[in-house]
Amino acid sequence: MNHTRPPAAVDLLARLGVIAGPRGIVTDPAEMAPYLADWRGIYQGNAAAVVRPANTEEVAAVVRACAETRTPIVPQGGNTGMCGAATPDATGSAIVLALGRMNRIIELDTLNNTATVEAGCILANIQEAAANANRLFPLSLGAEGSCQIGGNLSTNAGGINVLRYGNTRDLVLGLEVVLADGRVWDGLRGLRKDNTGYDLKHLFIGAEGTLGIITKAVLKLFPRPHNSSTALAAVANAEAAVELLALLREHCGDRVNAFEIMSRNCLEMVFRQIPGTRDPLPQAQPWYVLAELTDALAGTALRDDFEKALAAGIERKLVRDATVAENQAQAQALWRLRENIPEASRIEGLVYRHDISVAVSRIPEFIATASAALEAGFPGVRIICFGHLGDGNLHFNAFVPGRERSDAQARAATDVNRIVHDVVRGLGGSISAEHGIGQSKRGELAHYKSEVELGLMRTLKAALDPHNLMNPGKVL
Amino acid sequence: MNHTRPPAAVDLLARLGVIAGPRGIVTDPAEMAPYLADWRGIYQGNAAAVVRPANTEEVAAVVRACAETRTPIVPQGGNTGMCGAATPDATGSAIVLALGRMNRIIELDTLNNTATVEAGCILANIQEAAANANRLFPLSLGAEGSCQIGGNLSTNAGGINVLRYGNTRDLVLGLEVVLADGRVWDGLRGLRKDNTGYDLKHLFIGAEGTLGIITKAVLKLFPRPHNSSTALAAVANAEAAVELLALLREHCGDRVNAFEIMSRNCLEMVFRQIPGTRDPLPQAQPWYVLAELTDALAGTALRDDFEKALAAGIERKLVRDATVAENQAQAQALWRLRENIPEASRIEGLVYRHDISVAVSRIPEFIATASAALEAGFPGVRIICFGHLGDGNLHFNAFVPGRERSDAQARAATDVNRIVHDVVRGLGGSISAEHGIGQSKRGELAHYKSEVELGLMRTLKAALDPHNLMNPGKVL
Repeated sequence: MNHTRPPAAVDLLARLGVIAGPRGIVTDPAEMAPYLADWRGIYQGNAAAVVRPANTEEVAAVVRACAETRTPIVPQGGNTGMCGAATPDATGSAIVLALGRMNRIIELDTLNNTATVEAGCILANIQEAAANANRLFPLSLGAEGSCQIGGNLSTNAGGINVLRYGNTRDLVLGLEVVLADGRVWDGLRGLRKDNTGYDLKHLFIGAEGTLGIITKAVLKLFPRPHNSSTALAAVANAEAAVELLALLREHCGDRVNAFEIMSRNCLEMVFRQIPGTRDPLPQAQPWYVLAELTDALAGTALRDDFEKALAAGIERKLVRDATVAENQAQAQALWRLRENIPEASRIEGLVYRHDISVAVSRIPEFIATASAALEAGFPGVRIICFGHLGDGNLHFNAFVPGRERSDAQARAATDVNRIVHDVVRGLGGSISAEHGIGQSKRGELAHYKSEVELGLMRTLKAALDPHNLMNPGKVL
Repeated sequence: MNHTRPPAAVDLLARLGVIAGPRGIVTDPAEMAPYLADWRGIYQGNAAAVVRPANTEEVAAVVRACAETRTPIVPQGGNTGMCGAATPDATGSAIVLALGRMNRIIELDTLNNTATVEAGCILANIQEAAANANRLFPLSLGAEGSCQIGGNLSTNAGGINVLRYGNTRDLVLGLEVVLADGRVWDGLRGLRKDNTGYDLKHLFIGAEGTLGIITKAVLKLFPRPHNSSTALAAVANAEAAVELLALLREHCGDRVNAFEIMSRNCLEMVFRQIPGTRDPLPQAQPWYVLAELTDALAGTALRDDFEKALAAGIERKLVRDATVAENQAQAQALWRLRENIPEASRIEGLVYRHDISVAVSRIPEFIATASAALEAGFPGVRIICFGHLGDGNLHFNAFVPGRERSDAQARAATDVNRIVHDVVRGLGGSISAEHGIGQSKRGELAHYKSEVELGLMRTLKAALDPHNLMNPGKVL
């Protein structure tokens, strides 16, 4: 990585050093290394430097310098993404712009129910600041201890509370963004209603840094739930799970906070691989739903409501058996079954992952069709189906016989994905529900998106980043 | 209006007649008249024809014909907007594209909680279809019996349920849009999670028809509330109202569905002008809050919760007096006070209207500062302050001495607006919270928006509508 840099790059690095100061620029290969690979070690890139600006003005000056020298910029938050969006390419022509030093919670307004934060804030710190003010910031996901809100915004992160509170996109009132030419768009407004022209923030949210660099955000806060109840229900099939969701929402309304589905396969894998886990019901069942209710009101009514709704589910023959957690420890034990599925499958070998969504009503059709297609293409395939049924989002993963080990050839194969994604397309679904595109799904995006939609995206990219310097080679 | 048309226009009209059929084109001046003025009679325009296509293919063909002949298009829904966005200019060079024939509810999916509708559907019909399926479509506003969902989408309409359910923008999963060159973007997806590239739908929502024509939408449905409770609370000032909102949400969480504020002035005007209204509390009070809780669960607990929260408000000296409606009739009587404020002020004379928003926490500062500024500029001004406090959105209206009658000169004056909008800008607020820009606030937008933001908007407009044919002269 200690390659000779052309003189223009040397000039740029000197200029960036002046802008960001000695703490703000990293060129030592060992120090740069963590910024040049994704956390799973699948993508490995190179860069002229890692720049770590301390504030928006420094970001803007860095972007101006890069615009003038036509230097590509790869923005990076906590580097916890699943699709390689934050990893530069191998040429070393880009700089990595790491936002981690911009980690201030600027304001927490309990009367407006907003938090104004810098892009480099770690998600868990925002959650904690909100909780300390008796408020909820509902975005919650596995990487919350290290991911940064700027990355969550740029990837429109999902997680476990989407059913009730929406995706990251839905949790934002305003943004500050450094544009591709270094100008700063100040859209940092904490307004719940603003109909003065085009809504620009939604253009940058979920754009994975390809249209500009998010530097600050105004986030929505919510009343903090003081009560929760968790239950596991066994159902015969996905149809019953979907109908149980409708029944539960009719009974309990917005209290339904999570509604996850797991196949028996998933649980058996967890029992095998994760010590201390055990069958939650006396008899094995084909499918399980893990549901959670939360409420601002304290008291025991929530658990009663849950039991009534489940009793109605049993009466309507949707539910075969169920258990409602009696306390926090029991609730955590149920959640551990769900949360350990990814870890258990990592232990078992190479798994072909899919992060798909369809309309909730089409989940049963998707599972049936995709399972049949995979079994036809790969006899003996073992399907690990779980996910956020309430959002129509499944992680429909598969172990393929003969490809148990994670070698490069097996990893690079797209034949399994293509079968699943073809079914998704047929049902009008999404091939990336919550993980984004980055570099890993760029080919799939080009394959599956309509020409009109790709054309619109390219038009926007060309209009906002005419020299293709904002995270080039990602998404489009 | 029976002017001679140039030959090109005659050719175009013939072509449009073939596309849309005899029922789909209107050129008779008397039949065209309702489409050429806004419902309040403030804006009056002209058009080469009114075209009423029956489906998306016809819209696309109309747009292609207009693109080829460089004919401007003014899309129109129910023609209930407040800012003249649906009225063509006086030249008669444009066509009005009225979506009213495209009024099918295509699909109502109770398991996915979505309704797929054509743009010309009347809002009340969608609400009713949802209710018949035991679901709620929460968008609700004064014009709901005649406004069309395409107009609601294009203006990102607000209304009375924004506090709990968000603006129209938040109620949409997918769109179908005819682009400026006549291509159709099929983004009609009923997915709750989809991170495959830029979120294009948000570009067209709230764009007031200047970037493309929305032809279909997938809307979100919600559990239908089976229980509601309404209360009126008297407070000393806006500070107390804002703190009461926080207290109520801490007690009742998401159940808080509406939180409206009214000054004593508003109520006295209603008592004067609207027969059958009367003081809701024994003593006159300076400010009133009208709040509503709703819940999916039936039962009496909701009213108890409300009373407990109000009792806490009295204990904390936020609430001076309060009444909780005992039945539907009492609730309606309370709501009538709020709903009749616009009608009562129309009766009293020319009122200078403002549709502003600021952070909820800054509402008291806004009211104090804007009131003082108006009183300094116009001694004796009578301020009618009411609105959606829970959204930070006030209708801060004013009767100005010497300008009681609605003549053209008084109507055209912007001096009153400028004083209020300057205060809004100083507090980082919005000069159009829910009504949009159209033609009426175009000058104010150019005056108040930053150059960077206007530049971004112009860049998008030029990229998506390079010949400026989509509702030209509106917004930008």
